[in-house]
Amino acid sequence: MSISFIDIIDYIGTFAFAISGLRMAAIKHFDWFGAFVVGLVTAVGGGTMRDVCLGRTPFWMEDGTYLVWTGTAFLFAVLFRKHLFRFNNTFFIFDTIGLGLFVVVGFQKAIDAGCTQWVAIIMGTMTGAAGGVFRDILLAQVPLIFRKEIYAMACVIGGLVYMGCNFLGLGLTTTQLAAAGSVILTRLLAMRFDIGLPLLTEYRDGDRSEEEE
Amino acid sequence: MSISFIDIIDYIGTFAFAISGLRMAAIKHFDWFGAFVVGLVTAVGGGTMRDVCLGRTPFWMEDGTYLVWTGTAFLFAVLFRKHLFRFNNTFFIFDTIGLGLFVVVGFQKAIDAGCTQWVAIIMGTMTGAAGGVFRDILLAQVPLIFRKEIYAMACVIGGLVYMGCNFLGLGLTTTQLAAAGSVILTRLLAMRFDIGLPLLTEYRDGDRSEEEE
Amino acid sequence: MSISFIDIIDYIGTFAFAISGLRMAAIKHFDWFGAFVVGLVTAVGGGTMRDVCLGRTPFWMEDGTYLVWTGTAFLFAVLFRKHLFRFNNTFFIFDTIGLGLFVVVGFQKAIDAGCTQWVAIIMGTMTGAAGGVFRDILLAQVPLIFRKEIYAMACVIGGLVYMGCNFLGLGLTTTQLAAAGSVILTRLLAMRFDIGLPLLTEYRDGDRSEEEE
Repeated sequence: MSISFIDIIDYIGTFAFAISGLRMAAIKHFDWFGAFVVGLVTAVGGGTMRDVCLGRTPFWMEDGTYLVWTGTAFLFAVLFRKHLFRFNNTFFIFDTIGLGLFVVVGFQKAIDAGCTQWVAIIMGTMTGAAGGVFRDILLAQVPLIFRKEIYAMACVIGGLVYMGCNFLGLGLTTTQLAAAGSVILTRLLAMRFDIGLPLLTEYRDGDRSEEEE
Repeated sequence: MSISFIDIIDYIGTFAFAISGLRMAAIKHFDWFGAFVVGLVTAVGGGTMRDVCLGRTPFWMEDGTYLVWTGTAFLFAVLFRKHLFRFNNTFFIFDTIGLGLFVVVGFQKAIDAGCTQWVAIIMGTMTGAAGGVFRDILLAQVPLIFRKEIYAMACVIGGLVYMGCNFLGLGLTTTQLAAAGSVILTRLLAMRFDIGLPLLTEYRDGDRSEEEE
Repeated sequence: MSISFIDIIDYIGTFAFAISGLRMAAIKHFDWFGAFVVGLVTAVGGGTMRDVCLGRTPFWMEDGTYLVWTGTAFLFAVLFRKHLFRFNNTFFIFDTIGLGLFVVVGFQKAIDAGCTQWVAIIMGTMTGAAGGVFRDILLAQVPLIFRKEIYAMACVIGGLVYMGCNFLGLGLTTTQLAAAGSVILTRLLAMRFDIGLPLLTEYRDGDRSEEEE
């Protein structure tokens, strides 16, 4: 079994996604088991939902590597928990690179399963973004990606680029690089210039109390 | 491809369910992406869970119309967001008609998949009511249908009527009209006369604070 | 159809898990329908998630007995709701015995489906513990098992014992008794001596307010 460049990015993404879950679990004072589950769900939840929709066996059941990387992230979080909230920029970069790859993998798996390109965009976005939604559900809070940051939207853009490259008849490698690159670029630019999507309704005076329920 | 009367009701129901999700997302100040996801999950979440339980491909992956109607509801919500909280009665009627149809579709798909009638009642109720539960989970709040309104119970009654008609050997059209009609009638009557299910435990003085956690 | 000893334990576990959901629903003042759903999800949610991951039809769709026992638990909760919060120790024992069996059933079904033993440990833990997580999601609260009690960890230990017995080549009955016994023993000892897992981060002064969000 040889390990390709894609695999390495995949593992880095899994590690970074798991760390993102573990940090939130640490803030909420979860115990070790709870923290591990939140890390695991963040890392593999999106791909699992995609595989269930496609009628496939969840990918981590057929390849134990993802559990190993989540376990490594857990050990890292336990050993270096005092430093867990440093290195924000490093984690952000890894997380973003992983996001780009997850979107490409999700899109391609949907196409391989015979889905239309529109469904593939949804599957790519699900692969990249649903894990974070499940993480927030386990934390009993409104999903972060629904209220701030261009995160899921970067996944959609990556899927649209993938579809556009397919339409133009570009090769697979070019297509996947362009799609992953557009996800990463979108997120980096949105973060750098603090760009967000409009809200459906603006905040008004006195709304805070209503919203905090 | 011809569009039948059933299709039209199905699309109206999808639109009305999506609007119900979009309104809640607007109250919580979700961004456009978050609002769209909440609308989509409200509209197709119940049917998706049913299809996963039945081992089928989720219906919206095989027919893009449902995404189009959710997108239409989203555009409507963005364009007319100042009026999103008017027309309560109109939305309520559409929502209720859609509910009746969703229950019938869910029941029939379960029977087609070889389930018993008891399981079909659950599948019909799931189709009608689970989307709203997922919506409330994404909003990080206790599902509304667990605390007020005869909503899910109307789905169960519709399923029981369906089963009763099958038992009596009535034709398919009669059966489906009776089942959908009983869902609609139950909900309209419950709303009109403010009928609700009993609570498992009554409120007592001082309970509020405990319950609000 | 004869009923085996295993079946009886299975039904007791289903009843006890459903009661656990119904009690929490009662505290939150759910209506009858909501309470029934929470009881049902607590009882069959873990096994349903396992079956979906394994690509099987959820077990309760093929055997109505589980719905009957959940219904019985519901009737019990309605009739004896004033006593629902007594008999804590009795429910705890039933719940723990059920947990041991659920873990063994989940592990064995995963092996039967061709999974590796590591995946089987996850499936056993999922069968035992995921229902309680879904219950807490429906109650819009952080899953209890992520913050207190050796509960899910007992499932993992049971899975490890199962794997160890397989490694030693012990017979099926011995293996299953040892695995279920280790789940039960772990939980009883943890409860008796108030043992919990470490938290990923300790509480510090002033953390309470942050955590209560």
